[in-house]
Amino acid sequence: MTRKPKPVKDSFVRMTELVLPNDTNTLNNLMGGRMMHLMDVAAAISAQRHSNRIVVTASVDNVSFREGIKLGSVITLEAQVTRSFSSSMEVHINVWSEDIPSGTKVKSNEAFFTFVAVDQSGRPIDVPDAVPETAEEQAMFEGALRRRQLRLVLGGRMAPQEATELKALFDLVAQAAEDEPAG
Amino acid sequence: MTRKPKPVKDSFVRMTELVLPNDTNTLNNLMGGRMMHLMDVAAAISAQRHSNRIVVTASVDNVSFREGIKLGSVITLEAQVTRSFSSSMEVHINVWSEDIPSGTKVKSNEAFFTFVAVDQSGRPIDVPDAVPETAEEQAMFEGALRRRQLRLVLGGRMAPQEATELKALFDLVAQAAEDEPAG
Amino acid sequence: MTRKPKPVKDSFVRMTELVLPNDTNTLNNLMGGRMMHLMDVAAAISAQRHSNRIVVTASVDNVSFREGIKLGSVITLEAQVTRSFSSSMEVHINVWSEDIPSGTKVKSNEAFFTFVAVDQSGRPIDVPDAVPETAEEQAMFEGALRRRQLRLVLGGRMAPQEATELKALFDLVAQAAEDEPAG
Amino acid sequence: MTRKPKPVKDSFVRMTELVLPNDTNTLNNLMGGRMMHLMDVAAAISAQRHSNRIVVTASVDNVSFREGIKLGSVITLEAQVTRSFSSSMEVHINVWSEDIPSGTKVKSNEAFFTFVAVDQSGRPIDVPDAVPETAEEQAMFEGALRRRQLRLVLGGRMAPQEATELKALFDLVAQAAEDEPAG
Amino acid sequence: MTRKPKPVKDSFVRMTELVLPNDTNTLNNLMGGRMMHLMDVAAAISAQRHSNRIVVTASVDNVSFREGIKLGSVITLEAQVTRSFSSSMEVHINVWSEDIPSGTKVKSNEAFFTFVAVDQSGRPIDVPDAVPETAEEQAMFEGALRRRQLRLVLGGRMAPQEATELKALFDLVAQAAEDEPAG
Amino acid sequence: MTRKPKPVKDSFVRMTELVLPNDTNTLNNLMGGRMMHLMDVAAAISAQRHSNRIVVTASVDNVSFREGIKLGSVITLEAQVTRSFSSSMEVHINVWSEDIPSGTKVKSNEAFFTFVAVDQSGRPIDVPDAVPETAEEQAMFEGALRRRQLRLVLGGRMAPQEATELKALFDLVAQAAEDEPAG
Repeated sequence: MTRKPKPVKDSFVRMTELVLPNDTNTLNNLMGGRMMHLMDVAAAISAQRHSNRIVVTASVDNVSFREGIKLGSVITLEAQVTRSFSSSMEVHINVWSEDIPSGTKVKSNEAFFTFVAVDQSGRPIDVPDAVPETAEEQAMFEGALRRRQLRLVLGGRMAPQEATELKALFDLVAQAAEDEPAG
Repeated sequence: MTRKPKPVKDSFVRMTELVLPNDTNTLNNLMGGRMMHLMDVAAAISAQRHSNRIVVTASVDNVSFREGIKLGSVITLEAQVTRSFSSSMEVHINVWSEDIPSGTKVKSNEAFFTFVAVDQSGRPIDVPDAVPETAEEQAMFEGALRRRQLRLVLGGRMAPQEATELKALFDLVAQAAEDEPAG
Repeated sequence: MTRKPKPVKDSFVRMTELVLPNDTNTLNNLMGGRMMHLMDVAAAISAQRHSNRIVVTASVDNVSFREGIKLGSVITLEAQVTRSFSSSMEVHINVWSEDIPSGTKVKSNEAFFTFVAVDQSGRPIDVPDAVPETAEEQAMFEGALRRRQLRLVLGGRMAPQEATELKALFDLVAQAAEDEPAG
Repeated sequence: MTRKPKPVKDSFVRMTELVLPNDTNTLNNLMGGRMMHLMDVAAAISAQRHSNRIVVTASVDNVSFREGIKLGSVITLEAQVTRSFSSSMEVHINVWSEDIPSGTKVKSNEAFFTFVAVDQSGRPIDVPDAVPETAEEQAMFEGALRRRQLRLVLGGRMAPQEATELKALFDLVAQAAEDEPAG
Repeated sequence: MTRKPKPVKDSFVRMTELVLPNDTNTLNNLMGGRMMHLMDVAAAISAQRHSNRIVVTASVDNVSFREGIKLGSVITLEAQVTRSFSSSMEVHINVWSEDIPSGTKVKSNEAFFTFVAVDQSGRPIDVPDAVPETAEEQAMFEGALRRRQLRLVLGGRMAPQEATELKALFDLVAQAAEDEPAG
Repeated sequence: MTRKPKPVKDSFVRMTELVLPNDTNTLNNLMGGRMMHLMDVAAAISAQRHSNRIVVTASVDNVSFREGIKLGSVITLEAQVTRSFSSSMEVHINVWSEDIPSGTKVKSNEAFFTFVAVDQSGRPIDVPDAVPETAEEQAMFEGALRRRQLRLVLGGRMAPQEATELKALFDLVAQAAEDEPAG
């Protein structure tokens, strides 16, 4: 990787959106698919800022949806690259929803998306190293390796035995497994 | 759960879509976020057919994106409920993309979405049991419990030790962990 | 026509759509124009599957709209080529609407669209013969000639006298005309 | 019908639209379904102006599509009520497309849509009589009866024998039918 | 400027639109941004008709919004070039909103947009002189010079002293300024 | 005005958008109308944050458009309330466009929008005083009065003689007017 490393904070993106009628279901709540669409756009812009390249979505980790978000609410999405691996980048996204009359703002979602930078022919191309600077960015950077292994195991592209970074999680389970009779 | 059980196949949905300019990035490929939006709609219709209720997206499991899908391609999404748990339903979605000039059709994505059925006030409400009939449906039905535990563990709502259904997976990892020096 | 004939069933398309707010009028019913848009997309995909070509809409036969379809309903469109003529294909479309709470599904529309296959410069190009296999497909195939003549007569491109396939229909009318005094 | 008759010209609507990327197929031509959507909106506004009511699309007569209309072209739609029948109105629509660089404007489509005026509960409600004033409006007004019968015959809601207004058309055909051996 | 002058009335555009759910805020009124979007499209078509060129928006003068316009209302926009200056054209736009049940039509907005004609590489290119014919068109033509100076002064591209066309307006102010003690 | 004053910085909004195909003209540049739509949404969210109310657009000051913004570019909009007057708020908006391959970010537009806060019946309702804290915010706060008078004069709702805040601007012009012979 020969491109100049860049601080992860240079890839920070904040996106603010209004929940419009066509974004909602018959309860007047934002539909999950529309939310994922917005998350993908925010995260893609972040990955583009880091790589100065066209990027394509490679994977999305588990996303949970909590409280319904009402028609007319304001959604804020914040995305930032956590780490890069050759041509791929992991991006962390936080989403808040804001109810205008009460002025309350609650965290609504959190997710990790992975993107691959490509050239004009669509071939993967290396991206700069992502440099964490704060303690929080450092923690995200370190966790990225573990999440990447989990992604590969869940996608059937890595055997669980090779996922050395997942040891801490699995050790607890293994211990529990030993302690109980076969289920 | 007092509502009459229903065969899972009654919830089958096939959705066909044309990739339009606004769905694409600057390489003229379908954007990941638009694909997730379509998956959410197809899966939601399937969960609505099973429950005869309004449904809200509760979670999405890991999704991987492979080959780029070109502007003008035809996308086929097939969704079917695999199992229900009180008020929630897991839906399995397969996506194919079809290149018109060559007539080739390739599998593009596969994912599991979870929905919760709600009443008019948005409160969770029980849904019918989902009854698998074929061998394939039976396998999906059984795997649903394991995927549900993984979802709960990843979402921080279940301790790994309680995830008894994940034992098979974790045992292998635990074994690997014992065989190597601490990383 | 030298391209290999294809069974009409290979062109079958099922498309499922959710009625969203922007699709509706102020009574919260699906607008007719949006319905025709969806029918055109489903039928075009069917004609593309038959021809492996870009297709352009050539004509739409009379379409009737019955019951209003509510916001939040599920629409299912099924399209299949009935017959091909040199570079053109007739496609038959059925539409059902489904009310989620009651689980009822009613037939909403039926129509015939005609498409022309074109090359990259937009010039008409021959398509494979369409081969009916079931009795129903055979009846559709035979009726296609009559509908084509009616289309040409209504479009002013065929004199009524040449429309030999419409004789059965017209004979009844001619008889009625003789039986009554001039109106 | 007790509401005050209105001149048909009061219902005249001119709508001008720019062909945008999402309206086009992979040849960069306007899609037929999008054109029908625009025709339905223009015609509905015309019927609303005549009736001062919410209107719903009841039927569309045969529509033919000729030359492709390019991305970036300007579309002009002109719609006007031709005649009313109790709660329904027939609307005539002409469409022109305009190529900006050459300044040429060609007629692209012509169609008849029928709308029904409804009250807030969606029940049909009588509309004012439509009064033609020019010779052209008078010819459209008279032809409306014939087109209505054809619509009813094609929709299976009128026996051909009762379609007295179609005699002129059918007589020619009947004559031709007598002159030739059975096909 | 060697291109043949054209009457301003040749650039007249009338656009009619229905206010759809996604165009509205939570009071079910048309959003200002959507209105400006429509004004820009109508005005751009007018400038394209005058110049037979691609045009880009150069500026928008002050726009005021009065009464709210309800969901389901009909909007009519009328745009016409008032005058051209080398490669730029000023376009005047009037907007009316129409309430269908009452049949009332009220003027809603009025604005001036300026466009620049460009060639395929995006470089400004001269447009025909715009020729006013009626008294109203003549008054618009003459006022265009004054509005252009105001635009340049407000945009910081002309010193107030050079804005000779604004003298009448400023003289009154200057007089008032002399008559009162310093504020 | 009895509601608790709020710092202007609490109304700060940053919105990031990707330029999509349907946002562009045939030169693949962002259309001015789409840009104004985005500015209106960003500014409205800012006014909603200040007032905790539904807001409606009251006016837009002159907006100039400079360089074309390419398809695929990233747009960043930043909006903040500058001052409030009873029920109205002035919002200042800056727009930057960012070219991904080169990583360059240039200021593209700047504008002032005015919004009125309304209650559920659409009646104007008082908003909190807006409190500037930095020197830049203070300058914006003070200029708001002058811009408000210019808006009223241009909108024909204030006589130029009453616009005391515009004296500085007009004095220069008056002086220039005296120095030259009548034009």
